[in-house]
Amino acid sequence: MGERPGLLKTIEGPGDLKEVEVADLPRLAEEIRDLLINSVAESKAGGHLGPNLGVVELTIALHRVFDSPHDKVLWDTGHQAYVHKMLTGRADAFGSLRQEGGLSGYPSQEESEHDLIENSHASTALSYADGLAKAFRLRGEAERTVVAVIGDGALTGGMAWEALNNIAAERDLPLIIVVNDNGRSYSPTIGGLARHLGSLRMTQGYEHALEFVKDSLSKVPVLGSPFYETLHGVKKGLKDILAPQAMFEDLGLKYVGPIDGHDEQAVETALRKARGFRGPVIVHVITHKGHGYSPAENHDEDCFHAPQPFDPATGEERPRARGWTDVFSEEIVRIGGERADVVAITAAMLHPVGLAAFAEAYPDRIHDVGIAEQHALTSAAGLALGGLHPVVAVYSTFLNRAFDQLLMDVALHRLPVTVVLDRAGVTGDDGPSHNGMWDMSILQVVPGLRLAAPRDGARLRELLSEAVEVSDGPTVVRYPKGPVATDIEAVGKLGEMDVLRAADPDVLLVAVGCMAETCLAAARLLDAQGISATVVDPRWVMPLDDALPLAAAAHKLVAVVEDNGRVGAVGDAVARALRDADVDVPVRTYGVPQTFLAHAKRAKILSEAGLTAQGLAREITEAVAKRSPVLAPHTTR
Amino acid sequence: MGERPGLLKTIEGPGDLKEVEVADLPRLAEEIRDLLINSVAESKAGGHLGPNLGVVELTIALHRVFDSPHDKVLWDTGHQAYVHKMLTGRADAFGSLRQEGGLSGYPSQEESEHDLIENSHASTALSYADGLAKAFRLRGEAERTVVAVIGDGALTGGMAWEALNNIAAERDLPLIIVVNDNGRSYSPTIGGLARHLGSLRMTQGYEHALEFVKDSLSKVPVLGSPFYETLHGVKKGLKDILAPQAMFEDLGLKYVGPIDGHDEQAVETALRKARGFRGPVIVHVITHKGHGYSPAENHDEDCFHAPQPFDPATGEERPRARGWTDVFSEEIVRIGGERADVVAITAAMLHPVGLAAFAEAYPDRIHDVGIAEQHALTSAAGLALGGLHPVVAVYSTFLNRAFDQLLMDVALHRLPVTVVLDRAGVTGDDGPSHNGMWDMSILQVVPGLRLAAPRDGARLRELLSEAVEVSDGPTVVRYPKGPVATDIEAVGKLGEMDVLRAADPDVLLVAVGCMAETCLAAARLLDAQGISATVVDPRWVMPLDDALPLAAAAHKLVAVVEDNGRVGAVGDAVARALRDADVDVPVRTYGVPQTFLAHAKRAKILSEAGLTAQGLAREITEAVAKRSPVLAPHTTR
Repeated sequence: MGERPGLLKTIEGPGDLKEVEVADLPRLAEEIRDLLINSVAESKAGGHLGPNLGVVELTIALHRVFDSPHDKVLWDTGHQAYVHKMLTGRADAFGSLRQEGGLSGYPSQEESEHDLIENSHASTALSYADGLAKAFRLRGEAERTVVAVIGDGALTGGMAWEALNNIAAERDLPLIIVVNDNGRSYSPTIGGLARHLGSLRMTQGYEHALEFVKDSLSKVPVLGSPFYETLHGVKKGLKDILAPQAMFEDLGLKYVGPIDGHDEQAVETALRKARGFRGPVIVHVITHKGHGYSPAENHDEDCFHAPQPFDPATGEERPRARGWTDVFSEEIVRIGGERADVVAITAAMLHPVGLAAFAEAYPDRIHDVGIAEQHALTSAAGLALGGLHPVVAVYSTFLNRAFDQLLMDVALHRLPVTVVLDRAGVTGDDGPSHNGMWDMSILQVVPGLRLAAPRDGARLRELLSEAVEVSDGPTVVRYPKGPVATDIEAVGKLGEMDVLRAADPDVLLVAVGCMAETCLAAARLLDAQGISATVVDPRWVMPLDDALPLAAAAHKLVAVVEDNGRVGAVGDAVARALRDADVDVPVRTYGVPQTFLAHAKRAKILSEAGLTAQGLAREITEAVAKRSPVLAPHTTR
Repeated sequence: MGERPGLLKTIEGPGDLKEVEVADLPRLAEEIRDLLINSVAESKAGGHLGPNLGVVELTIALHRVFDSPHDKVLWDTGHQAYVHKMLTGRADAFGSLRQEGGLSGYPSQEESEHDLIENSHASTALSYADGLAKAFRLRGEAERTVVAVIGDGALTGGMAWEALNNIAAERDLPLIIVVNDNGRSYSPTIGGLARHLGSLRMTQGYEHALEFVKDSLSKVPVLGSPFYETLHGVKKGLKDILAPQAMFEDLGLKYVGPIDGHDEQAVETALRKARGFRGPVIVHVITHKGHGYSPAENHDEDCFHAPQPFDPATGEERPRARGWTDVFSEEIVRIGGERADVVAITAAMLHPVGLAAFAEAYPDRIHDVGIAEQHALTSAAGLALGGLHPVVAVYSTFLNRAFDQLLMDVALHRLPVTVVLDRAGVTGDDGPSHNGMWDMSILQVVPGLRLAAPRDGARLRELLSEAVEVSDGPTVVRYPKGPVATDIEAVGKLGEMDVLRAADPDVLLVAVGCMAETCLAAARLLDAQGISATVVDPRWVMPLDDALPLAAAAHKLVAVVEDNGRVGAVGDAVARALRDADVDVPVRTYGVPQTFLAHAKRAKILSEAGLTAQGLAREITEAVAKRSPVLAPHTTR
């Protein structure tokens, strides 16, 4: 980690920061950047770099102008809060970033009184801020200012709009919205808003605008691109692009900006001005993701959004192992080549969900909708109504944002939309709000939905192909984060289920998705205990195979193993199927405990949940033992 | 119903409508209004009146200008599609409106090729339209126009913003957004957008504006009200309010309007102009909810949004039986009087969820956030962070919109927010998207959440009081639509559960919420079969009482009865609790089948699901008989 550098060492909190001489602030910023780069470069658990390099000066200014925690500073998508952590007494802890028991990669109320929003999902901060400011007002504490820092990407999320609409109705609410505008969410921000912000950005000066236009002229003006917009603006006499702050003001919000977000003093001035209004105001700050570190600034894909461990000097990342995402990426390109009706949708995550290759191969069949999962699902419904087969690829945890849309807009209309859930199950490092441990539970209630959990790369290909063949309702394919599991071939079939291991009728082990390997290992350990275990992989876990109750009836115990939260998931579904079929064989269900899991490595979390071969073998042995006086002689019910 | 009137009789579809002479259109509109008023007035199943009276001319114009179903007309919140149904061959069917087997109260693909969106949840149409238009473009059918009709209220929903942001990025998408602006959702629309639309509305003419201002001057200018805005506008020299279409245009959307929505020819002209653009365009149409029927126009609360059966001549509604909502309404006012920290939130449903009295009593503690459930929950999280106890009252089905916010913004932060779910369980008449049959399933996965299902009015008061006392996490209280159940007193306690009926240890009947009465009746029928049944009401169904597994172990069968979808709900939770406690007593779970239920009366749906005393007694007798020939000697079924 290296030593904690000089100036930063003197800062235990915002009070100390206010004492720093203005002339020393650039040095402080440099120290912060060094610590950011080195911490993330060497972190065993990864980290977010680009976003934090972009907010160094902004964060310094915020904590010099406002008085946290009396005033409240809220970070929308807390992965941009590293600098905030450093300036609130936690610089020393960056050696333990995102490691078990160490510093969280997001704000954490347990860590600091300066932290509030722990959730990593975007576009929430304005709503929090609205509530918080209204609470202060009602309690007669209106002198406290609430500041929400939100990226231009997060503004594309519908929640942010709902909040803006409400905040704008309150003329006396001391609430400052800092739009941290870097033109990117994960990837470049899209849509009408981005264009509008783009034109606002141009008001930095006529000169700047002209330069930008000149630059743009050397490139092809693509319809709808910022370049086109600029040229278009020039034609209109630069009038519109020089004074277009109308949108926010139309809503009734004051607007300050645009401000150069890397000019710390300019940001301070703007914030002080905004604070003076004692009403809702937008401060539009222009920053550059990755600022001050050229490997990040020049990183086309995502400005080192959250790199692998890398060499701080060169920015060279360690190679990533071949992952589930890579398999999906290849397969969807193959499918796209065979099926002209297959279109893909991403919610601002083109690269992370593995759709970049598809986008390159079929540029007219990819839609990046912004951080807008609701729209992703319902526009998919529209595409399906129009005769296409959309594939929406999204992180499992973010599907929760679009549950209603999947249920009512897609499933109620029996539309053929395939949802691909990456990062399903336990992801670990990013803490409770990134774990994809909810999908197999909440999806159970969706009528007509089919849900597949591939156990390995071969099954991912197979099940994805089957999913896009379904024409009368939604399909979901879900797989975890990380390296793809080694292929495990079936030794037989039971209905449509794969039998991975056939055995005498003691225990029927139902292995869901990537838990197959663990279940096979557990079965071998059970052998040593004199307990024989059949292992089946249902492949499609919704609907359950009709053969399952019958197969269960031929065993003495059924054990279901999954890496989803254990409440309401496949285990409960298997138990219900058996009950409904009047099969009274005892069922054991093993999954992730239904709690918010503190950040730690996936393997560690699964191990603590007993989801290892040893853990499962022990539990199952115990369950069998409890029942064996009755069960062993094979009593007929 | 009366006879189908003259002109309307000649119209079997949009083609016929195009043949009607312009001079005859006012007569057609009148016939349509008569049919609307009489159908809803006499409907045994209720219906939506105000919204449909407001779109008569608009709908006529739409079907005269566009060529459905080649072009697509999408209705956002389909309860405004009655006129559309009349003009697409279904005028004759209005006698069966919302009745089982009859006309749906929403568009229905099964009913007509002119219908698309069956979901009743607001703010979806723009996303559908975006997808549909893009599908046509990709398929080389760009000559087809997609028209989405969306209310100003629905524009406050975040989904609509997500869609606008995407649509605005497409310059060549022939997509027309008709903003049906009546200044109301259910109640008057709120927020910055409403103000902006209000100012756009003023561009109808300087004269009109001046008149409006004069009117306004006779009233008190409330800060944030349209009057204030108008006066403010006047001060600014009427400049801004006469040319403020900037907001939509800033996003890159063309804007046509405002148009008088009751001038059919003016609407036709605007629509033809909009169609000519072959790009995304907003047509801003001003309508009046309840237009042409004075009892609706003069109805302060909601312009006869969805009245009880009423006298068409006078508009006098039949009185409503005292409902669950009334009990909540009284109790929350009482609680508000005792607790200054209790604040209430509604998503544009102040009256329907029973918060009007609270709003009147404590005007500084009510927040109507618009049709914005996501913001409702997360601003509640903010209020709770600020030391208050928010109560969010919402229809059960609409909570699905804010699942992620409840999970991540409220529960993860262990914030004391109470969610009150009205219309939980089967609502029936409004069809599949209004049934509140999902909440008890999806809420199961939320760590730390407590969920109460009161069986009667007394328990609703009791459990609501307990809920607002909880300070370390979210609580939910859910109850059905309709008349409140008669109080049933407990005969004992089992842990914290109410014992409603103590009996010998044959069957343990777990009665969830309002199913208590049915369960008691079933228990009496079981008696006649020689099967004794204990009936318990857990009151709090999450977490389950620790006493439950032990009590279960003392019985031969456990039966759980609930009016939620049976997948993943309380039944599954009870079964899991028993499994986890190694209690192998067979469990039977009775609930609503996990399908999209066609519209019908609640009682009929429950009956078909077997959720009657007779149905349950029969099922339980059978389950007992299968397991113990000794137990059920009377095999009389």
